[in-house]
Amino acid sequence: MYSFKNDYSVGAHPSILKALLDTNETQQQGYGQDDYSLLATDLIRDKLQNQASDVHLVSGGTQANLTVISSILKPYQSVISAVTGHINHMETGAIEATGHRIETIPTPNGKLTPALIEAFMDTLMPVHMRIPKLVYISNSTEIGTHYTRNELIALWDFCKQKDMFLFMDGARLASGLDAGDITFPDLAKYTDVFYIGGAKNGALLGEAIVINNADIKADFSYNLKLRGALLAKGRLLGIQFVELFRDDLYFKIGAHLNRMAALLTKGISQLGYSFSTNSKTNQIFPILPYSIIRQLEQKYDFYVWEKLDNEKAIVRLVTNWAMSEAIIEQFIADLAACSVNAYKPERELCLQD
Amino acid sequence: MYSFKNDYSVGAHPSILKALLDTNETQQQGYGQDDYSLLATDLIRDKLQNQASDVHLVSGGTQANLTVISSILKPYQSVISAVTGHINHMETGAIEATGHRIETIPTPNGKLTPALIEAFMDTLMPVHMRIPKLVYISNSTEIGTHYTRNELIALWDFCKQKDMFLFMDGARLASGLDAGDITFPDLAKYTDVFYIGGAKNGALLGEAIVINNADIKADFSYNLKLRGALLAKGRLLGIQFVELFRDDLYFKIGAHLNRMAALLTKGISQLGYSFSTNSKTNQIFPILPYSIIRQLEQKYDFYVWEKLDNEKAIVRLVTNWAMSEAIIEQFIADLAACSVNAYKPERELCLQD
Amino acid sequence: MYSFKNDYSVGAHPSILKALLDTNETQQQGYGQDDYSLLATDLIRDKLQNQASDVHLVSGGTQANLTVISSILKPYQSVISAVTGHINHMETGAIEATGHRIETIPTPNGKLTPALIEAFMDTLMPVHMRIPKLVYISNSTEIGTHYTRNELIALWDFCKQKDMFLFMDGARLASGLDAGDITFPDLAKYTDVFYIGGAKNGALLGEAIVINNADIKADFSYNLKLRGALLAKGRLLGIQFVELFRDDLYFKIGAHLNRMAALLTKGISQLGYSFSTNSKTNQIFPILPYSIIRQLEQKYDFYVWEKLDNEKAIVRLVTNWAMSEAIIEQFIADLAACSVNAYKPERELCLQD
Amino acid sequence: MYSFKNDYSVGAHPSILKALLDTNETQQQGYGQDDYSLLATDLIRDKLQNQASDVHLVSGGTQANLTVISSILKPYQSVISAVTGHINHMETGAIEATGHRIETIPTPNGKLTPALIEAFMDTLMPVHMRIPKLVYISNSTEIGTHYTRNELIALWDFCKQKDMFLFMDGARLASGLDAGDITFPDLAKYTDVFYIGGAKNGALLGEAIVINNADIKADFSYNLKLRGALLAKGRLLGIQFVELFRDDLYFKIGAHLNRMAALLTKGISQLGYSFSTNSKTNQIFPILPYSIIRQLEQKYDFYVWEKLDNEKAIVRLVTNWAMSEAIIEQFIADLAACSVNAYKPERELCLQD
Repeated sequence: MYSFKNDYSVGAHPSILKALLDTNETQQQGYGQDDYSLLATDLIRDKLQNQASDVHLVSGGTQANLTVISSILKPYQSVISAVTGHINHMETGAIEATGHRIETIPTPNGKLTPALIEAFMDTLMPVHMRIPKLVYISNSTEIGTHYTRNELIALWDFCKQKDMFLFMDGARLASGLDAGDITFPDLAKYTDVFYIGGAKNGALLGEAIVINNADIKADFSYNLKLRGALLAKGRLLGIQFVELFRDDLYFKIGAHLNRMAALLTKGISQLGYSFSTNSKTNQIFPILPYSIIRQLEQKYDFYVWEKLDNEKAIVRLVTNWAMSEAIIEQFIADLAACSVNAYKPERELCLQD
Repeated sequence: MYSFKNDYSVGAHPSILKALLDTNETQQQGYGQDDYSLLATDLIRDKLQNQASDVHLVSGGTQANLTVISSILKPYQSVISAVTGHINHMETGAIEATGHRIETIPTPNGKLTPALIEAFMDTLMPVHMRIPKLVYISNSTEIGTHYTRNELIALWDFCKQKDMFLFMDGARLASGLDAGDITFPDLAKYTDVFYIGGAKNGALLGEAIVINNADIKADFSYNLKLRGALLAKGRLLGIQFVELFRDDLYFKIGAHLNRMAALLTKGISQLGYSFSTNSKTNQIFPILPYSIIRQLEQKYDFYVWEKLDNEKAIVRLVTNWAMSEAIIEQFIADLAACSVNAYKPERELCLQD
Repeated sequence: MYSFKNDYSVGAHPSILKALLDTNETQQQGYGQDDYSLLATDLIRDKLQNQASDVHLVSGGTQANLTVISSILKPYQSVISAVTGHINHMETGAIEATGHRIETIPTPNGKLTPALIEAFMDTLMPVHMRIPKLVYISNSTEIGTHYTRNELIALWDFCKQKDMFLFMDGARLASGLDAGDITFPDLAKYTDVFYIGGAKNGALLGEAIVINNADIKADFSYNLKLRGALLAKGRLLGIQFVELFRDDLYFKIGAHLNRMAALLTKGISQLGYSFSTNSKTNQIFPILPYSIIRQLEQKYDFYVWEKLDNEKAIVRLVTNWAMSEAIIEQFIADLAACSVNAYKPERELCLQD
Repeated sequence: MYSFKNDYSVGAHPSILKALLDTNETQQQGYGQDDYSLLATDLIRDKLQNQASDVHLVSGGTQANLTVISSILKPYQSVISAVTGHINHMETGAIEATGHRIETIPTPNGKLTPALIEAFMDTLMPVHMRIPKLVYISNSTEIGTHYTRNELIALWDFCKQKDMFLFMDGARLASGLDAGDITFPDLAKYTDVFYIGGAKNGALLGEAIVINNADIKADFSYNLKLRGALLAKGRLLGIQFVELFRDDLYFKIGAHLNRMAALLTKGISQLGYSFSTNSKTNQIFPILPYSIIRQLEQKYDFYVWEKLDNEKAIVRLVTNWAMSEAIIEQFIADLAACSVNAYKPERELCLQD
């Protein structure tokens, strides 16, 4: 059984494990004051070409989201998200648990635009409704799409004009950046705060929150402690981000994820299947008949994302840092075999062992 | 510079790192459903001799505390803690941020007793004050003391009689248990919920929350997700707790921590110094003249815990899993050398290099 | 200028003011323990034919909503509401501020049904999404519709089958009941908790929260104090609810509100205008050309509820306890006069002074 | 049975009731936009000699406290209060329910000083403890003492030097001001925010929050709505504060409260009893033998505040706006009669009927 279910099914990139071993005996300060966390901060600032950005390393994405958002908003302020946004869709009310409404906007492709946000804001009434103060976007998005540089700049300009903050969830940032034309220095220029996802890009765990806007930097570590996001052995996070950024491993993994996904997309397309979204990132969403899904499930693990009708569904396939071309080819071969036999119900299984 | 500052200054026990390497390529389910987390649960249940306990692995102690406490209390209910309790003293208002008051009780030694709690509860007035529903204790405590089995049973009986829950913070559980007569099966019998600290006992990170009381088990995973405490690669936690419990490594480390601390205590005592608390655990609190503290600080890292007067202060010394007898002996030798010279202010430094 | 803007533009029913005067000098206990609050409880229980219901008097509707909802839900549980529900639409994030998500369901007429709720619940995923535990409905609804007895019973049966609570916001309960066939005893049988709105039905302020389900009764007063909802001079609320219920004044006012609204509806219909919702309650929503709206605004105060296009909009007209037939007739006469002149732009104003 | 239990046992001052009657039929805007609330704001600003202060009228003191405090603090910031402070002692965790810790400081007389606050702040540790940002004081205090002008200015200077806000709870402001030398204009100069208590000073309900500091004025109405503190018929509050301030009724009532309390104090002192606090305000705390308390309880209602030993206790006696000299004289006469008979246990009751 091979898993295309997500990008966190395997452990860490070998160079990260090696670094953990190499540094294990060194004594370090706790709570993010270790040498590695400080070095990781320097490396990230260099990549951003912005020495003024603050960097804070935390364990996970929901933790990053809830800590950042609750640190920025006043009680009556809310955060705007696409309906498909991770904070809205898959975080068990974590944002609301900090006291804030998520204002949700339906989008055609998981991406917010100034026009969509402005139309929503025109419906608000003073005092009896919230004041949205923060725009949350994910790059790549939860449905595999990504923002272009122009789209990001348009959102940034809009937010500044409306006196709002712009926050990018980068749980899948490496894949999102690789798919488009946004550069790392752009992130420092065109977001107030974002984070660099580690867990889905080769790390054991860890997201690096980067705060660019001086207005929201003060005392941020207090928010981390308050939300249980400050690790005693912060070195565990520091060491990993040093490995990811000291020699561009982060970007290499992002490129690998997308290249594997593109191979998968190409193979599936050539077999005549279509996709629910146009993804250039490491999550793809082919539409497959249930008869084929049931056969693939014998050998592969993946999510059936959405039932379309009694005959077919959208499935989600995700690539990971350790995935090889060989497994992609095997999957395509299996899908091809199933597809040939798709109308021969007497043969239940068509997968090669 | 050697650090006695805390028990999280070094990395993980080698067998944990080895296990991370050995399992790295295996694909696993996310969010705590991996084979290792399930196995860790089984191993912990076996040690508890209680197959009904639920086990949830999380990243850190403050996270464990805030998630457990907020999952149990209704809005008007509060948690009782010693003034010195970690939730009260060192968590930046993390419990209050979930909406709940900590009721604080001064104690002579960091430990709560039924009599202390009852005296507090007699001062409460209906409706206009909170209803305490949970008693929080730490074992070992933040000032190095530990609970005996009889003390735990007395608290348990009191809590059940008052319809309250009993929660033990086990950030330093291995040391706390080794110092006293409480067994692992006792924890299943005489607490409603507790956690097994990993980060301060040889793990990279991780605390294992154990819920014994069926009334607070339901849907606990939702609370984890809600508080950002559910790791995507839960395997990282599972693998570590498997290593800690498959061959009693957890208890061996606890014994080592205490043995090292006892050596330190013995050496310091023999030099004629006293201690602010009577600790049998891995945190000790000698009282030293500032003249000596300043010299020790040239070579060792540790906390000056509390100023007593202009002449002397309490310092905190903490042992860790990697500490050797040799470093203890060196420290004692250095302290002895300083002590001899303590009244010769012309010699600033007395430490051996 | 006469106001049809809302049902809280005038003071209290004269019998309420008289009762305040008559009782003013009597000394009473504070915080809801006064004789009048206790008597109000008895009167309401009698009307409900349920001596087991608990009654708590509070100042306002948002306060009632947030106190009730936050008292019932655990941190990961959410409340279901129609998109048009007051808690979702007009309370500035008050529910989210207590830590809970509102799950919103679009409805054709402001009313939830078991089918709508079930379809929503089928989209939920364990652990990563919330558990809805409470269904919130308003009667009458925010857009003038009301529930029938059969609709209420269907929701009740559904909630019990799904182990959810049913909560009715009765800010406009008198009007809602008068419009339909739900009786007061039905409210005790087919809701877990509801409240009886006073401020929009002849009182100066005040809503009476009625808790029928024993599981959510315990310690409710603590929640009131916690949310700032326990008045020192609770007598102010008690006296008013005694007046409203000792001789059925509450129901008489509800009938008056609806009769006035029906007159208004009839007159507007006869002039050829249609309505956006089919309301039998004290809020009606006629669709009027902007040319006429602008003229009416010279003499009347009301909300332009929703712009439909450049030519016309929905307006909201609300009746109040003090409104006379004469003012309705005057309004219809003015509307008729405007309508006649609607295509004569040279005459700006057509209203009689 | 006459009640000295509190200052909210009777209704409203007659001129307030008259105003409610006189204005009852007038149509007004809702949610604090009525003519009376606007006029009350003007009258209060005039008394403060500060046209820049914002005024917001709310229902109660706990509501005022939780709304103000939660509007000012960031998640990791806390509020400092005397242990005896109302927010700490008698509000069921209302402040914690908004997510914030109350830092409590023991005081000899219910009053905070710069020295007390500074000593507390010296114990704080960065990141792992909160940042206190707000100092909460009550005037008069919960134990009957009051601040002098110099004490207030010292606190104000200290807060400004430490970049903290100063908030005065004025639930008993009229009595507190009358007892000391702080003027109304001083409140605008030497607090960032305070409130003017109505319910304990002749109103049916209502506290007027006054915000002097421009940094905390923005969007405050959103906080009111969010906490359920915005009344639909805000006129009810507006009318009362107009009456209290259009002709200094507020101050006259404060003077009456204190004069009655002084009479009571004088009579009790002359009978040889002492007091637990030196109160010049409308709450006094005589120390009486239980034998006499039990007799007084036959005819009077009051709190036994604190048991001192098996023989005697502190009781609290509170004067109200409607209290006459005759009732004070009667109480003193009864106390005198009891005192004469205090050592004659054969006579159980000594009170005159």
